[in-house]
Amino acid sequence: MKKILAVTGIRSEYFILQPVFEEFVSKKDVCLKVVVTGAHLSPVHGYTYKLIERDGYDIIKLENLLSSDFLSGRCKSLGIQIMGLTDIVVRENPDWLLVLGDREESIATAIVGTYLNIPVAHICGGDRVVGNIDDSVRHAVTKLAHLHFPVTRENGERILKMGEEPWRVHVVGNPALDSIRKQPDLSFDCINKKLGTDLKENTSFILLIQHPLSSEVGQAGEQMRITLQAVSELGYYTIIIYPNSDAGSYEMIKVINEFEQKYDFIKAYKTLPRDIFVNLQRKTALLLGNSSSGILEAPFLKIPVVNVGNRQRQRQHSENIIFVPHDKEKIKEAINKAINDKEFINMCKNCSNPYGDGYSSKRIVDIVLNTPIDSKLLNKQIVY
Amino acid sequence: MKKILAVTGIRSEYFILQPVFEEFVSKKDVCLKVVVTGAHLSPVHGYTYKLIERDGYDIIKLENLLSSDFLSGRCKSLGIQIMGLTDIVVRENPDWLLVLGDREESIATAIVGTYLNIPVAHICGGDRVVGNIDDSVRHAVTKLAHLHFPVTRENGERILKMGEEPWRVHVVGNPALDSIRKQPDLSFDCINKKLGTDLKENTSFILLIQHPLSSEVGQAGEQMRITLQAVSELGYYTIIIYPNSDAGSYEMIKVINEFEQKYDFIKAYKTLPRDIFVNLQRKTALLLGNSSSGILEAPFLKIPVVNVGNRQRQRQHSENIIFVPHDKEKIKEAINKAINDKEFINMCKNCSNPYGDGYSSKRIVDIVLNTPIDSKLLNKQIVY
Amino acid sequence: MKKILAVTGIRSEYFILQPVFEEFVSKKDVCLKVVVTGAHLSPVHGYTYKLIERDGYDIIKLENLLSSDFLSGRCKSLGIQIMGLTDIVVRENPDWLLVLGDREESIATAIVGTYLNIPVAHICGGDRVVGNIDDSVRHAVTKLAHLHFPVTRENGERILKMGEEPWRVHVVGNPALDSIRKQPDLSFDCINKKLGTDLKENTSFILLIQHPLSSEVGQAGEQMRITLQAVSELGYYTIIIYPNSDAGSYEMIKVINEFEQKYDFIKAYKTLPRDIFVNLQRKTALLLGNSSSGILEAPFLKIPVVNVGNRQRQRQHSENIIFVPHDKEKIKEAINKAINDKEFINMCKNCSNPYGDGYSSKRIVDIVLNTPIDSKLLNKQIVY
Amino acid sequence: MKKILAVTGIRSEYFILQPVFEEFVSKKDVCLKVVVTGAHLSPVHGYTYKLIERDGYDIIKLENLLSSDFLSGRCKSLGIQIMGLTDIVVRENPDWLLVLGDREESIATAIVGTYLNIPVAHICGGDRVVGNIDDSVRHAVTKLAHLHFPVTRENGERILKMGEEPWRVHVVGNPALDSIRKQPDLSFDCINKKLGTDLKENTSFILLIQHPLSSEVGQAGEQMRITLQAVSELGYYTIIIYPNSDAGSYEMIKVINEFEQKYDFIKAYKTLPRDIFVNLQRKTALLLGNSSSGILEAPFLKIPVVNVGNRQRQRQHSENIIFVPHDKEKIKEAINKAINDKEFINMCKNCSNPYGDGYSSKRIVDIVLNTPIDSKLLNKQIVY
Repeated sequence: MKKILAVTGIRSEYFILQPVFEEFVSKKDVCLKVVVTGAHLSPVHGYTYKLIERDGYDIIKLENLLSSDFLSGRCKSLGIQIMGLTDIVVRENPDWLLVLGDREESIATAIVGTYLNIPVAHICGGDRVVGNIDDSVRHAVTKLAHLHFPVTRENGERILKMGEEPWRVHVVGNPALDSIRKQPDLSFDCINKKLGTDLKENTSFILLIQHPLSSEVGQAGEQMRITLQAVSELGYYTIIIYPNSDAGSYEMIKVINEFEQKYDFIKAYKTLPRDIFVNLQRKTALLLGNSSSGILEAPFLKIPVVNVGNRQRQRQHSENIIFVPHDKEKIKEAINKAINDKEFINMCKNCSNPYGDGYSSKRIVDIVLNTPIDSKLLNKQIVY
Repeated sequence: MKKILAVTGIRSEYFILQPVFEEFVSKKDVCLKVVVTGAHLSPVHGYTYKLIERDGYDIIKLENLLSSDFLSGRCKSLGIQIMGLTDIVVRENPDWLLVLGDREESIATAIVGTYLNIPVAHICGGDRVVGNIDDSVRHAVTKLAHLHFPVTRENGERILKMGEEPWRVHVVGNPALDSIRKQPDLSFDCINKKLGTDLKENTSFILLIQHPLSSEVGQAGEQMRITLQAVSELGYYTIIIYPNSDAGSYEMIKVINEFEQKYDFIKAYKTLPRDIFVNLQRKTALLLGNSSSGILEAPFLKIPVVNVGNRQRQRQHSENIIFVPHDKEKIKEAINKAINDKEFINMCKNCSNPYGDGYSSKRIVDIVLNTPIDSKLLNKQIVY
Repeated sequence: MKKILAVTGIRSEYFILQPVFEEFVSKKDVCLKVVVTGAHLSPVHGYTYKLIERDGYDIIKLENLLSSDFLSGRCKSLGIQIMGLTDIVVRENPDWLLVLGDREESIATAIVGTYLNIPVAHICGGDRVVGNIDDSVRHAVTKLAHLHFPVTRENGERILKMGEEPWRVHVVGNPALDSIRKQPDLSFDCINKKLGTDLKENTSFILLIQHPLSSEVGQAGEQMRITLQAVSELGYYTIIIYPNSDAGSYEMIKVINEFEQKYDFIKAYKTLPRDIFVNLQRKTALLLGNSSSGILEAPFLKIPVVNVGNRQRQRQHSENIIFVPHDKEKIKEAINKAINDKEFINMCKNCSNPYGDGYSSKRIVDIVLNTPIDSKLLNKQIVY
Repeated sequence: MKKILAVTGIRSEYFILQPVFEEFVSKKDVCLKVVVTGAHLSPVHGYTYKLIERDGYDIIKLENLLSSDFLSGRCKSLGIQIMGLTDIVVRENPDWLLVLGDREESIATAIVGTYLNIPVAHICGGDRVVGNIDDSVRHAVTKLAHLHFPVTRENGERILKMGEEPWRVHVVGNPALDSIRKQPDLSFDCINKKLGTDLKENTSFILLIQHPLSSEVGQAGEQMRITLQAVSELGYYTIIIYPNSDAGSYEMIKVINEFEQKYDFIKAYKTLPRDIFVNLQRKTALLLGNSSSGILEAPFLKIPVVNVGNRQRQRQHSENIIFVPHDKEKIKEAINKAINDKEFINMCKNCSNPYGDGYSSKRIVDIVLNTPIDSKLLNKQIVY
């Protein structure tokens, strides 16, 4: 009997982790518990822990997110998270900790595993994003974690260069693609009924997700305004999903509310059910904003992406992505290209995809369950 | 006017940091404040914050160390530390954070600097010690910190390999040597008066410092017992300094108390004034245990070291060090060699010293004060 | 030189405390610092700490409010507050702690003062409100605090009955009235310009402030909806101020937003500048909802109050208040009475006022500064 | 099925609570969990949580005690405790919280119950001790708790005077007497074997327990020294139990160690098994120090008490107690009286006992299980 304690703090993480959870619970002799923390438990961010509960996982609540838009709020919340997570891990005494990415819960979990001598499996390490503290945090997590599941070969190589022992590093692809692969198709009718929208077959619509950057907090509201001005001038139907809980998000949400009230063709949602979201991704003319799904999922779905601003820049990416600055005209131009330029659209349909084949979860789960928990695993050694 | 906020949690750190503090306060246009936290504020560990206060620095107290001998106590204490340090940094708004090594306060400071966008200068990164979580923590701190001051060339190269931008890495030597260099000589009379000891010129005595290992917590008491059995059978006068506050230390202190009561020639101290300690190092026949000063300071002082157990193993070291397991006979043999083997003692007197020349603090302070605080400094990029 | 450390966590408290602060800073040999915490630092509640900063007080920020609508969020936030406040009090080492009322910061401050042996002056103790945990908290604070400044004689007597030594109890009146008394008159033009409203001389408008009850969290949204249905059916111009940060407030704000978008004559504000607020109180036809200002300030201003639901019930009150349940028709009827019943309006103009004369702050400050800080003050004894 | 969550932070509390626990687990349809926190988890205080675990209760660990001898350490620890206890209560969702006395865990539990709307049963409220913050804390807990189990009629009346509704107040006697009543007799041989002592039938020995006072922290060590000087000059065999974890205790322990090393007839123990302790109480010539067991248990056991200093003064007590100041000669005189004055010893054998009959637990458990959990219970009202 192996006990896995997974930790998740935000909707976007959960969507990547969920197929791995599904795979774990499908095994007998595995007990999975999920610590829900951070934005999942915040009313401002739509109480997304309920998704996880509804999906049937055994959850443990850990409230830690301060109601703050200061950088300090994020950092103090992390301290609270480490305190609470320590108590939980002492009580649960799991065999493995499982975490993903580069957010507060990632480093909190890696620290707790390190100090409590419990191995940490880390998904999505080795990546590289610029203009954000996420990079520093992600690489620090790599130096603490005991097993690495990078999404691409390039990321795996970066982890090796950082001095991790090769047997700890397993390139597995992005587990989010597993769930996209498995998601059944929904009709426009069905989507419209659920969202109160007016989307139509053969009429292009835009899916917009834009998050604040920790290094550009002060401009977050203005950046959202520029994107929404571009969108409102073009007049395509646009579905917005709220930004994550980082500093700056309150300002962005205010701007979103303002445009939503003004324009009938702009609709915003705090969060969307997974099946709706995947079907919107499949049907959208383009993904707009700076969501990592533009990098990670769009090449699998073969859809165009217009990435605005510095987030995601210098990250490994496929050919289906157009990078533009926070400039209304440049954004409009790129949207037009993504919707009307047949050649570009065609190229997107055949774009390369370094992010996996939709079968990552099985790989992760098999490797975790087959790795002996011994001093070799627990005593990390840098290779040089 | 530059404001530096340094963070220290334990006596051993402070001794390395103190010459850097001294150099900072010697500059006009620099304001130094020192956050004292961790073991410094614990009565079990001798209230060493008083040393720092007595040395005249402007201190800010941050209590966080739980009265615990569990691994969880250390980890939860770290969460408390991050919470309190965030409040302090918000209030002080320093230009730089300064921290050293691989303990809780090191990663707490690196995290707070990262999330609050304040540059972190990190001393003693890039080192390599095996059989301990310190390595993971130290390398994670490196991935978060903005300026690196490794002690040796080898350590500096390790930091570069981990992907840090070369302009961030400055090999400066160990600042602890600066204070050793400057410390005035004390006579045996003076030392005996202060310590209540009975040390004599031309009579060999041993200086013993042995810490618990996080991966061998359960054996900590027994390991101390083996060392003290060796010492007590040989009968050399032995000065013990208490272990640090890590899990296992309570057990070790119990054993120390037991031997101290039994043998007149064994004397233990919670902590020692810096001047006494340096003079004991200069005069001792050998350094016994597993203190990092055996690695870092002994080659500068040209004294023999007998390092017991796995701590410090596989670390870069000079020729003056004999590694032995927790085996009474092997320890006795090594002590005898260090005290009586003329050839070995001579070799120690001429041993190589990769750890610096006693002028490190000036280098650190000049580099910190001359590094512009801009987005180049704050936005870290991995080089590959 | 006396150092006073005041603690405030929410706008409503600050408005009562502010005249006391003003009186303290007018004294030479007094240093006042204000810890701003709780809802003051939350973007959801309009960052009201900026008011305090703008008023020129020396503030210390203490973030503690979790982004939560669970009861647990409030309680965990209180733990965080005690941790941070302890650090601040250790650092500031004040002569006195000053706090008000029955919220988290009240009991946090009383606890910190008790454990750190620093006297706590408590304003607004002895009051009685039913259907809320506030009563329990307020009386617990009384049992911890060292000097009591109840607002009314009745409250003072309640404190004495609880066993407090008589010399600790001083009935002073409500300091909020001091600032109402001093506030200059503003014209409707001026108010309309600042609020974007359309208020007119001789046209009745309503001022609505309704908070959630801890014992009726689940109904908070629905309760707000009932009040707003009554208001919208009557059609009087209505100015709403957002509820405080207690559990349930998010639901209430959602309902407010909905009605505000539907009806031109309903206007909602997260917070209002003090001068505007006082002038609205002076000019309004009635105060609607369950704000304590209906109890505490309305009798001084001689305006009618319609108090909805269980909050404020069984509290000492004057004759100008009509209590109604959460029942649309009953609310409409009461509003009509308050606006149209000449006899009732006349009676309000002559109502009794047990809440003070607008000169409370001077009394509080003089007593605090003249009370010797000795073991008599610090060692509390119950009288029976 | 009723779920009871009890909270205990220190050995002395546990000994009173244990018979109540025993009674609860004897009921079917009751699930009892015990949160062990505070000094129970501290190595300095002998890891007393192990007693509770060994007694077979289902424990939940909550580490919170800072390694500190400052007043601030206690207060910050309380904040940590509230944070962790909130998480635990959210997860366990008990029907009742159960706590005792006037320590940090008492007020922490009362606060958590109040804010989370879970009823709190409080044992030992209404008592009165002078020269300590315990009084303030105990009365504050009374104002928060929902059901009161005072030990004596006098204490019950004090609670009523404080304005608690009469149906909440149940005078039940001290449950510690239940366990004393049930404890089997042990022979001197058996005790000597377990303790390594040399106690003899017909030879008087002293049982000494002395705690620090929060208002006299600085004198704690000296106070212990005076008592031990008296004891050492008289030469009676003396069994010392270590003080609790309050500020000042480290200094006291140092003094104890010093005397224990000097005098063969002085033996100190961090903690004692319950059966040994009760038998020592039964057999001792007198109880010396300031332990509350001198007030609460000695009249049931009919043994003399010499109470030193201000702790316990002005508390309700029986005739078997002699109060003396911290004065060596006075202490010696009182010890002599307690050991040699036949008349006094006889009077002790017939002393009055307001503290119960050894059947308190059954009363508490029956009342808790028969009190409906409804709004009447949860909405506290002061009676005046």
